[in-house]
Amino acid sequence: MARVAVGIEYDGSAYSGWQSQQHVPSVQAELERALSRVADHALRLTAAGRTDAGVHALMQVAHFDTTSSRPERAWVLGGSAECAPDLSVLWARQVPDDFHARFSAVSRSYIYRIVNRRVRPAIDRGHACWLRRPLDADAMDAAAQSLVGEHDFSALRAAGCQSPTPVRRVLGVAVRRDADRVEIRITANAFLHHMVRNVAGALIEVGVGDRAVDWVAELLASRDRTQGGVTAPPQGLYFAGVAYDARWGLPTEAAGLR
Amino acid sequence: MARVAVGIEYDGSAYSGWQSQQHVPSVQAELERALSRVADHALRLTAAGRTDAGVHALMQVAHFDTTSSRPERAWVLGGSAECAPDLSVLWARQVPDDFHARFSAVSRSYIYRIVNRRVRPAIDRGHACWLRRPLDADAMDAAAQSLVGEHDFSALRAAGCQSPTPVRRVLGVAVRRDADRVEIRITANAFLHHMVRNVAGALIEVGVGDRAVDWVAELLASRDRTQGGVTAPPQGLYFAGVAYDARWGLPTEAAGLR
Repeated sequence: MARVAVGIEYDGSAYSGWQSQQHVPSVQAELERALSRVADHALRLTAAGRTDAGVHALMQVAHFDTTSSRPERAWVLGGSAECAPDLSVLWARQVPDDFHARFSAVSRSYIYRIVNRRVRPAIDRGHACWLRRPLDADAMDAAAQSLVGEHDFSALRAAGCQSPTPVRRVLGVAVRRDADRVEIRITANAFLHHMVRNVAGALIEVGVGDRAVDWVAELLASRDRTQGGVTAPPQGLYFAGVAYDARWGLPTEAAGLR
Repeated sequence: MARVAVGIEYDGSAYSGWQSQQHVPSVQAELERALSRVADHALRLTAAGRTDAGVHALMQVAHFDTTSSRPERAWVLGGSAECAPDLSVLWARQVPDDFHARFSAVSRSYIYRIVNRRVRPAIDRGHACWLRRPLDADAMDAAAQSLVGEHDFSALRAAGCQSPTPVRRVLGVAVRRDADRVEIRITANAFLHHMVRNVAGALIEVGVGDRAVDWVAELLASRDRTQGGVTAPPQGLYFAGVAYDARWGLPTEAAGLR
């Protein structure tokens, strides 16, 4: 039995999220179907981070166990060829048995993309959040810095979040404008359910001027989700990469990260 | 009667091109339908550059004549709301009667986008050309410089191109790599039919090493289309903007140009 890690890109538009569920399409089920055909036996994938319906991935990482001794390129080329055109297997590496895509991950990164202009995006519909009111990206960036460090993120987790602890460690966050695009990049040891979309929602309130820059720090300190802003829509969210200890020898960032 | 110029973004995937044709969807027909509803009378659009099937536009420019005295924002917001989600009206300006979207244009710019990696793009499928063999973008950039200036582009026009002259003036061209993306940007006074896709095809032959850097200059001098490379596929091509004399007061570049 060998353990294999794969890097995956996907357009989440057509899926109910990463996780397999009955009667609805999922990224996990589609990839398990494709990679099982390459392996010639049924296999199960475990992902670094389970994304919600409509959320995309520039580089998700998952692992599986297989009795097949296919070379790495067979998982990449065969897996990509077998799966739907909105999924691609970017790389594959055989890893030691004690590697775990989720538990071995040191940190995860997400990007939240906003098209900030009067009219909706035509080319990027389904791949960005559209916001009509002008955003002050510098104010958003300043407000976001209060998230850095280890905090209780109860004010920014989903009501139904099942994590036993609301404490996470944000390693870095940046908000940048490029013409009519505003992008939020955030890296943390791990994220709570809806955490990035709730962060985006809170920063948007600052960006449009409805809240002061220091409100985000107050919101965080309140530990009260009912004080928070809206949950930003899923189509702007990209799972951007996972960092592992260097000894595993895995790519940590999507090559095509723009 | 007032003349109005509009800037338009579109995802060309679902259209047989800009130009209205019977029995097939076109960008022109869809926009004329939407803007006619805003105007409350039938109107006809004239574009700066007619794009082919599957080609996108970050900023196409078109004009129309109308008896309606709608404010500019009605054309933008109403036009965008009335048309299909793969089209957006970015801006509208009332212009003098002697403005003509096509004949007043001083230059046009196109971008050709290539995803250069082993596996096909999942998120950008339909929005980039996929090329598996590694491209040398510096060699492509060097080869492309022979296109700059006024030349007979017979070797890079479509067989069926109906332009009375094959002479065009290329104002600038650049090929740049960013991780696994290679982008060709080219500006000319005007373009022949399939010219950008044939330029991309020729530069790709240099990029993969099948042709030397100076082959593009030889190809151009041959004036012989049969010596040229393949026509690169339409989904990588973006009409990126149009330049007009400053006296018309029109935006010359898509704000969201990345």
